[in-house]
Amino acid sequence: MHVKALETLIQTNTLVNNIKFCIEGEEEVGSPNLGKFVASHKELLKADCVLISDSAMISLETPSIDIGVRGLSYIEVEVTGPDRDLHSGVYGGAVANPITILAKMIASCHDANNHITIPGFYDDVLEATEAERKLMSLAPYNEQEFKDDLGVKEVWGEAGYSTNERTGIRPTIELNGIWGGYQGEGAKTVLPSKATAKISARLVPNQSSKKITEMLLNYFTKIAPPNVTVRAFEHHGGEPYMTPIDCTAYLAAAKAMETTFGKTPIPVRGGGSIPICALFEKELGIKIVFMGFGLDSDNLHSPNEKFNLANFYKGIETIPYFHQYFTEMSS
Amino acid sequence: MHVKALETLIQTNTLVNNIKFCIEGEEEVGSPNLGKFVASHKELLKADCVLISDSAMISLETPSIDIGVRGLSYIEVEVTGPDRDLHSGVYGGAVANPITILAKMIASCHDANNHITIPGFYDDVLEATEAERKLMSLAPYNEQEFKDDLGVKEVWGEAGYSTNERTGIRPTIELNGIWGGYQGEGAKTVLPSKATAKISARLVPNQSSKKITEMLLNYFTKIAPPNVTVRAFEHHGGEPYMTPIDCTAYLAAAKAMETTFGKTPIPVRGGGSIPICALFEKELGIKIVFMGFGLDSDNLHSPNEKFNLANFYKGIETIPYFHQYFTEMSS
Repeated sequence: MHVKALETLIQTNTLVNNIKFCIEGEEEVGSPNLGKFVASHKELLKADCVLISDSAMISLETPSIDIGVRGLSYIEVEVTGPDRDLHSGVYGGAVANPITILAKMIASCHDANNHITIPGFYDDVLEATEAERKLMSLAPYNEQEFKDDLGVKEVWGEAGYSTNERTGIRPTIELNGIWGGYQGEGAKTVLPSKATAKISARLVPNQSSKKITEMLLNYFTKIAPPNVTVRAFEHHGGEPYMTPIDCTAYLAAAKAMETTFGKTPIPVRGGGSIPICALFEKELGIKIVFMGFGLDSDNLHSPNEKFNLANFYKGIETIPYFHQYFTEMSS
Repeated sequence: MHVKALETLIQTNTLVNNIKFCIEGEEEVGSPNLGKFVASHKELLKADCVLISDSAMISLETPSIDIGVRGLSYIEVEVTGPDRDLHSGVYGGAVANPITILAKMIASCHDANNHITIPGFYDDVLEATEAERKLMSLAPYNEQEFKDDLGVKEVWGEAGYSTNERTGIRPTIELNGIWGGYQGEGAKTVLPSKATAKISARLVPNQSSKKITEMLLNYFTKIAPPNVTVRAFEHHGGEPYMTPIDCTAYLAAAKAMETTFGKTPIPVRGGGSIPICALFEKELGIKIVFMGFGLDSDNLHSPNEKFNLANFYKGIETIPYFHQYFTEMSS
């Protein structure tokens, strides 16, 4: 156990620096109020850096630090054909089926290489350097284990990129939900009035959530054939963020993990989104560092989401070192 | 009022012929028991013809008789990706999304001309003759009224065919339902485990429901990429049926309508399916004639399904004449 920093903390009952906790419960609905709060409480929130633990590491054997989170654009697209559900025999073949139309619109988003086809989607992408891609390729990755863990026969993704790159340095478009027509037991012969999909894009540095959201809304509105009506609107979004690996906060976090894990953590790019990062940097002018102790296998946003006790204790051991080193390095 | 036949019936309290009523409540679930019943009760059901009123007419001003019903093949296709819903950020871009895959599979069923692309789908279609197409084109059709009635901006369908032809003489593939992932209020960033669709085909003479069902099941199973698992199964089906317009039952029905409506009814092809027609013809060796008094605007299989009283009374007036004429013509 590497608990010196923790023991010191307990024995002296003194923090080596001041800590401000910011606890917010609206992240999954797009943090509609935090932006206003941060902008109007800059003095209260004044700090040297932001430490966020809502991130993951590769494993207890292979510590890592997320140095990037992807941005998010989340929209909903509703396709309306006839003004009521129709008999699929009496009208089938002569009236546009909203499910068929929506499926064609969704299918049009990726080409055969799973490259996104929406014009301009990749325009602002800051391509990862060859050096970074080389560094990423060193992270342990066992494709068979990855597939077994998820119960899939084959991985999927944009041609020319590895699995880690596909979730780390590349933007994506995912279908989060779809519904329309009859969904009950057995059969019902309807040509439905409506079909709806929830669609989100993950964004990478330099893409703008606002710009991509507008691009998606325009795309789905414009590609719709004249036989249907499309209503598309935004749910929420967030900008991507990257921590510079030469900033004090990152160096302190890396040293803290090295102390308790006995290994230098690997800097990796996370696939998820933490929209408040860009907000904090913009409003408070400080860097964000992630030091999370969860695992990808914790079933985030899935049934049976969990957090291993071993990871929990390792976090308790490690974080006091971060505070100690950050203070030492900053002074 | 043309109620002579009805008056005679009431005054004499005597039917001009024997009537056997066959009432069945399982049609919308594919009549799983009727086939066995008919096959094992041929003597009980022995008759000269079958009269079915589960059909429509153009209008009270333009009487018509359905001379054909389309067949049906109804299947369900379930696409499974990962074995649980995943975080769409952590895994998005690296794992096949079942909704995206299902959408691509659905989109592949029709080309840009809305012609069905499934290999062999049209192979057995008995094309309508030019003479029949010419006759069909005489049926009144007001496209603006058709669109206004359904609230659509444009009609849709297979290039080269009119609206009446698209629902009458051409087979179709319709999406009856679809669901997958998050369908609630707001946003949830999941990459879902499953996506499912209910898909049905309407068939025209000479297509076999059994053959098309197998073709659809094979198609959706085989076009699935190796990143997902597809489970496809049949709900139910039924064969198409056509009434010869020179058979006694049709001639009697047409004369009955001419008597009460004052106009020769137009023979038209209906878009719906009445699977028991092919069953009755096969098992009992008799012809089926449709004499229905509903309208397409009755909202069949839709909210607020209705039946106008005027059509109801016109049916009561007309049907006794059918029995009178059929008896006269058969003797």
